[in-house]
Amino acid sequence: MKIMKSIVVKSLLALLLLANAASAAEPLPSWNDTVQKKAIVTFVEQVTREGSPNFVPPAERIATFDNDGTLWSEQPMYFQMAFMRDRVRALAPQHPEWKKKQPFKAMLEGDMKAVSVGGQHALVELIMATHAGYTTEEFAQIVKDWLVTARHPKTGRPYTEMVYQPMLELLAYLRTNGFKTYIVSGGSVEFMRPWTEKVYGFPPEQVVGSSFKTKFELRNGKPVLVQLPEFNFIDDNEGKPIGINQYIGRRPIAAFGNSDGDLQMLQWTTAGSGARLALLVHHTDAEREWAYDRTSSFGRLDKALDEAQAKGWTVVDMKDDWKIIYTFEKN
Amino acid sequence: MKIMKSIVVKSLLALLLLANAASAAEPLPSWNDTVQKKAIVTFVEQVTREGSPNFVPPAERIATFDNDGTLWSEQPMYFQMAFMRDRVRALAPQHPEWKKKQPFKAMLEGDMKAVSVGGQHALVELIMATHAGYTTEEFAQIVKDWLVTARHPKTGRPYTEMVYQPMLELLAYLRTNGFKTYIVSGGSVEFMRPWTEKVYGFPPEQVVGSSFKTKFELRNGKPVLVQLPEFNFIDDNEGKPIGINQYIGRRPIAAFGNSDGDLQMLQWTTAGSGARLALLVHHTDAEREWAYDRTSSFGRLDKALDEAQAKGWTVVDMKDDWKIIYTFEKN
Repeated sequence: MKIMKSIVVKSLLALLLLANAASAAEPLPSWNDTVQKKAIVTFVEQVTREGSPNFVPPAERIATFDNDGTLWSEQPMYFQMAFMRDRVRALAPQHPEWKKKQPFKAMLEGDMKAVSVGGQHALVELIMATHAGYTTEEFAQIVKDWLVTARHPKTGRPYTEMVYQPMLELLAYLRTNGFKTYIVSGGSVEFMRPWTEKVYGFPPEQVVGSSFKTKFELRNGKPVLVQLPEFNFIDDNEGKPIGINQYIGRRPIAAFGNSDGDLQMLQWTTAGSGARLALLVHHTDAEREWAYDRTSSFGRLDKALDEAQAKGWTVVDMKDDWKIIYTFEKN
Repeated sequence: MKIMKSIVVKSLLALLLLANAASAAEPLPSWNDTVQKKAIVTFVEQVTREGSPNFVPPAERIATFDNDGTLWSEQPMYFQMAFMRDRVRALAPQHPEWKKKQPFKAMLEGDMKAVSVGGQHALVELIMATHAGYTTEEFAQIVKDWLVTARHPKTGRPYTEMVYQPMLELLAYLRTNGFKTYIVSGGSVEFMRPWTEKVYGFPPEQVVGSSFKTKFELRNGKPVLVQLPEFNFIDDNEGKPIGINQYIGRRPIAAFGNSDGDLQMLQWTTAGSGARLALLVHHTDAEREWAYDRTSSFGRLDKALDEAQAKGWTVVDMKDDWKIIYTFEKN
């Protein structure tokens, strides 16, 4: 019973600290006091206040987040594509034929325009050449090693520092209010899971994304899973609600995206009953980040922007709504 | 601050109640004091005791459970198959051709031997005819409705009462000790998720299983997901570690099964470093449940039994190790 008492006392202290912290900390400090911030706070208060007609029990407070362009930047190209480029370069000595063979030649020369000429087919070839053949453990290590040395061309920062401080605050705010938060990204789970917990606080089981088929093998009696050169699932557009249903099995009450690839996820989320939050991050800040929407090759926001306006979804204007973009701006 | 104090006081009371309950309750009351129960308790104590060389942080305490034959019975046939039989009967008036067409004719006549003659192909035909074409919401309702009226042929009980009381206690014991528990079943998620939370305490996002492909559609502007007549994933044998990697993204430290379909999951689980628990439920009780293993058509346990013996995995003898099988035996 002594131990139990000590646990109780410790828990009591922790609760008191928590109570103080909760009353002291204003949520979303990097958000300006605009209608967008208000929409978020109003929604969270509605679904968490017991007795409110829109109250949602904690277990059903599912919130899903796109990654590229919603939680971290996606320019001048998706970061997983920069990873692929660097992997093609690292693997090139073992593939002398790549010097003459497209799309590898273009990738080695850093000529992304020439890569894009090859279209979907070239992209798939590059993805498979850089992701397949590894065991799941080998590949996770490759991703971790890459993140240590790779730097973003514009900021010179590690890619994992190119995450949006206001969105980190939003994640913290939702989690404090009992939400279970998920990534639902077009990027692959193999590329995301090695770092999403440390950077954003998403454990591996809360990361939904595109994925590769794997093969179970016994190597000297030890089982391994080997990544195959075949997509298992493409988690984009219609794939997002499909992936949500497949992996989570519940409809989110809040969804966050930034491009047409997120449209169906937002439609699916808002089609449920009760209070719903659908939010788009609009890239409007050419100075601190990038400004792009309807014609961008990465993160095109066109149809979803129209639908957001028609349906009254929350559209965040990065330039006006966010005091800072990246955490490192604090320093 | 008044509200905060009230929360603190309530939490303190809850903690005291919890402390009393924890010191009073002996874990696994329906388990006899055999070497199998001891193996479970020893494992849990090892991985939860801080400072122990085998300590595992709570976030990594993943435990995966097969369903059919591990958490509930699977005789005289998998319960999802009984569901299919009843669905074929319910749908027969809309399909007069089934009276003359196999495997439907055999299913309508309840002639399971004749159904099995059709092999894998016939089975797939039956699965698709009874599971495809519905929206995910329609299908969940069909499963719920079926469970209300369907009765097991031997006990006359609802199928959801054919769950093993000792396994419910094991689930509770693991959860109390910070484990995150998952179903990893050959049965389909569409069939399991509507009831696993209520019956076992697995929320939808902790149910991994076989699944159907779905299609995203807008019906009068409202998005729906329609189940297609095509498998998305078969979660059996090699599929179990593949599914675990795909859905959870972490290797379990404990896995529970009862048949050869669970062998690879147990291999995958035990191949990790540190303390591991691999457990097989051996159906040895012809009187209170069923006795079967190496030659059964449902839940065959042959190779996995050999490997369990060779590797010293825990094999539960239902007859000797369990005081009762089903919860209703308590009454």
